[in-house]
Amino acid sequence: MNLEEKQISTQRVYDGALLKVNKDQIELPNKNTTIREYFNHPGASCVVALTDDNKVVIERQFRYPFHSIITELPAGKLDKGEDPLVAAKRELKEETGYTAKRWTYMGDFYPSVAYTDENIRLYLAQDLTLEEQHLDDDEFVEVELIDFQELVNMVMQGKIKDGKSIAAILKADKIIS
Amino acid sequence: MNLEEKQISTQRVYDGALLKVNKDQIELPNKNTTIREYFNHPGASCVVALTDDNKVVIERQFRYPFHSIITELPAGKLDKGEDPLVAAKRELKEETGYTAKRWTYMGDFYPSVAYTDENIRLYLAQDLTLEEQHLDDDEFVEVELIDFQELVNMVMQGKIKDGKSIAAILKADKIIS
Repeated sequence: MNLEEKQISTQRVYDGALLKVNKDQIELPNKNTTIREYFNHPGASCVVALTDDNKVVIERQFRYPFHSIITELPAGKLDKGEDPLVAAKRELKEETGYTAKRWTYMGDFYPSVAYTDENIRLYLAQDLTLEEQHLDDDEFVEVELIDFQELVNMVMQGKIKDGKSIAAILKADKIIS
Repeated sequence: MNLEEKQISTQRVYDGALLKVNKDQIELPNKNTTIREYFNHPGASCVVALTDDNKVVIERQFRYPFHSIITELPAGKLDKGEDPLVAAKRELKEETGYTAKRWTYMGDFYPSVAYTDENIRLYLAQDLTLEEQHLDDDEFVEVELIDFQELVNMVMQGKIKDGKSIAAILKADKIIS
């Protein structure tokens, strides 16, 4: 079956600080035309940082779209042209104070294939050392250690709802066990 | 630590068909002000539909933001006010032709906590019957069955990149085994 959609025209309809929204006129496989709304994203990295005694470094952050505090793994956007592994190391260090000697790439995670090209690279970090956290003045993050098996149970009980965290924790679980 | 962000004002900066983007002025815990860009989403449902001989119903769809065909689980947006389980049954039937007698709720999946309140409810569907597919005229979806263990291997090898599919497949794997 031919599934391909072809671009006819593209228009930047909102040029925000984070969200740069495009509205494209496209041709469907049946030659009908329709529109696609989406935004480009620089990509991100996300880390399961596992201590020698099997605890995972997690963060609690106020997430404005939900007006509530969400439990999630350390993660952050890539700087322009930044290597995803470099970004993963930078974000882990800045947000939690941890550095790691051993890094395992666990694959890509596309959060929302319908409306953004964002790609979050998932990593497992081991052989941790705690140094100093360097949050921006306007960044508010609570860091905590949770036993890995307890965290997997929280995922399975539906207590962890952040998508990248669910995927990364369950991937790490299969890699480790 | 106080993590809460308070709304000062809100503005609809783009009112698209799918993306309705808001830009809010907010107050941070340290009383500084900044902006948050995000969009509201009606929510969605996603289904691991497992046949009696341990095959999973998957879809291949052209996903415009990536300009490529993505392998993913059946899923779809909720109609206004629609119950997530009703949406899951509707989408599975329309897109793949399958109905299921046994449904297990596997938890919520937030694709992108930074910029949308979208919540995808994950389901496991069993005791399947194949009826008739009812795609919209402008919907192009290739349906295939993949052995469950092979699909789990594809997730672990990084061949499945769609976020909701990674999370739902690995949750189903732990529930079943």
